[in-house]
Amino acid sequence: MGQEIERKFLLQSEDWRGEIKRSQAIAQGYLNEDPARTVRARIKGDAAFITIKGKNEGITRAEFEYAIPVEDARALLKLCPNVLDKTRHEVHRDGFIWEIDEFHGDNAGLIVAEIELPAVDTSFAKPDWLGEEVSGDPRYYNSALSTLPFSRWSRS
Amino acid sequence: MGQEIERKFLLQSEDWRGEIKRSQAIAQGYLNEDPARTVRARIKGDAAFITIKGKNEGITRAEFEYAIPVEDARALLKLCPNVLDKTRHEVHRDGFIWEIDEFHGDNAGLIVAEIELPAVDTSFAKPDWLGEEVSGDPRYYNSALSTLPFSRWSRS
Repeated sequence: MGQEIERKFLLQSEDWRGEIKRSQAIAQGYLNEDPARTVRARIKGDAAFITIKGKNEGITRAEFEYAIPVEDARALLKLCPNVLDKTRHEVHRDGFIWEIDEFHGDNAGLIVAEIELPAVDTSFAKPDWLGEEVSGDPRYYNSALSTLPFSRWSRS
Repeated sequence: MGQEIERKFLLQSEDWRGEIKRSQAIAQGYLNEDPARTVRARIKGDAAFITIKGKNEGITRAEFEYAIPVEDARALLKLCPNVLDKTRHEVHRDGFIWEIDEFHGDNAGLIVAEIELPAVDTSFAKPDWLGEEVSGDPRYYNSALSTLPFSRWSRS
């Protein structure tokens, strides 16, 4: 069991690409998209996980993650109504790891940077490529992107 | 990953109680009740599990089960809309294990016997305490009993 404290931002330039430490392919699907009890199956590089998340309370969320065989994850993704593909890039800055998710498929064009914090009030320097904060916006939940992908958002 | 081949019956007498090998308390809740991708958290005696099941195909169903810390399971049950309590009694007969679930709480009065089979066409002797088969009846799914418990079924 854990607690996840995360902040999420859009990107305002491509300058972060010069700082990439590593990149991994991620395929994930939702066995439940309900934000009160999200259940995610994920293949990340050559590892796989089941992750359960509780309701967001501000930027905090209960999180439970279990490693599972990749073969199981492949079968579980087939049970999911939608599968989301992205590349996760890691950028290290001032002792923090920024995870920058570049989405593919129906979410192509969307890039989101996340930072995980040890406490809700932890301060961190904002890199100059960082854009608008979207931590509280449910449209950017990965579970939401799997049902209503970025390409289908109305831009009105 | 596995495949579950199971048949489910009501009981027509209490005679099975004389054959009980062991009994364990089970508390379980559903992180997803959708039969196409059921996600269950379960505490069984002093162990705990996450179990994911796919859609029923006849009496066969894909099943994935992972052991998790009991402490995690307790927290996960709090994320579930309903928690189902039952006692599982084991009865051994002709090389088969009958799991007889005696439900409590809102499902009190309901007792169901299940047998897991190695193949769909495996034959087995029916003990004389065995009643009507309910394998195909979705009302008896544990996921369904957690939302519409036995005490609220109409007896018309």
